[in-house]
Amino acid sequence: MTPPGQQPEPSKSRQRRERERAETRTEILRAARELARAEGWDAVSMRRLADRIGYSTNYAYRYFKGRDDILLAFVKDGFVRLADTMRTGGTSVQAAAAAYLDFALDEPDVYQVMYGLGGVHVPAADTVTEGNAVGAVIADALGVADPYDDRIARIWATAHGLAALHAIRKLPVDRAHLHRLLAASVDDLLRTPQQPEEGDAR
Amino acid sequence: MTPPGQQPEPSKSRQRRERERAETRTEILRAARELARAEGWDAVSMRRLADRIGYSTNYAYRYFKGRDDILLAFVKDGFVRLADTMRTGGTSVQAAAAAYLDFALDEPDVYQVMYGLGGVHVPAADTVTEGNAVGAVIADALGVADPYDDRIARIWATAHGLAALHAIRKLPVDRAHLHRLLAASVDDLLRTPQQPEEGDAR
Repeated sequence: MTPPGQQPEPSKSRQRRERERAETRTEILRAARELARAEGWDAVSMRRLADRIGYSTNYAYRYFKGRDDILLAFVKDGFVRLADTMRTGGTSVQAAAAAYLDFALDEPDVYQVMYGLGGVHVPAADTVTEGNAVGAVIADALGVADPYDDRIARIWATAHGLAALHAIRKLPVDRAHLHRLLAASVDDLLRTPQQPEEGDAR
Repeated sequence: MTPPGQQPEPSKSRQRRERERAETRTEILRAARELARAEGWDAVSMRRLADRIGYSTNYAYRYFKGRDDILLAFVKDGFVRLADTMRTGGTSVQAAAAAYLDFALDEPDVYQVMYGLGGVHVPAADTVTEGNAVGAVIADALGVADPYDDRIARIWATAHGLAALHAIRKLPVDRAHLHRLLAASVDDLLRTPQQPEEGDAR
């Protein structure tokens, strides 16, 4: 029995186990991203990952249920970091939109997984709520309480469309030009006075 | 020797062979789309297609170089039909944009292949010029001669972003609402007077 006032020993060893577990997960994710950058996300399999970091495939399965589970970890982490980047980018809608675009251009591999682009299949049903934080940052910058404000969707769609078309080389312009296109659309949207909603059925 | 004024016989049989060839290609493409609708584009392989229409796999390879070649046929045909739909939808920018969105919503399976969405991998390098006709229709509707006018890219990006976010359930609103979002963005863009370009380096 543990004397009162003293940390029970199992808790310490559990803490250590949890830390080690988190470290191993991080190591597997790092290897996955390296593999994806070198050979594309198609190459990321449990077997390839295990080979790469010198574990058995069975051992890797103790940390992730499979390839989809690994991709899902990138989706979740990606959306958390994207929202953070937008939040710290500034308080204006323009700054938030620009930070969004920069993230998509700086981490095309992660953006690809987040939105199921370029041949990466992420089960959409599992990631429906991911990205809500992105909308929340735009809502804050717009100063609106409604997370379904139409202007949020329009800014998001334009930013995503620019990034996605650029990624498949349908919009072969440079970064500064992409930013000008996005800024012009956000400017136009902000310039238009908001009319009161006329019984919008949503 | 063929008497003058008469169609040479080889030409007639060549015409017949070409017609039959076109019909077989059409049959293979029809089977591919049915398979894609039933089981997703991942299921579309030369073997599965040959099985489905009762040909040998080798026979199917006489008509298409492989799975990528079949996807490419859908990309090309999709962009031709998309541009046609936009052109016949009306002469205004609003009508062209609305026709674009309707195409994406009516044929999500084809749109997916055209833009490499949802796990479908189409080699981007092979389809860079596909879609130029879409830009040309928007340019006509805007009344601009420059196929790289920034407003074309902005309308295209917004329409694509809305369709793509909706396809992965990140924008779970109905068709009428999507149209309102797109129309509002196009309206804002058209309302803004065009300033003369200030030494845009392109």
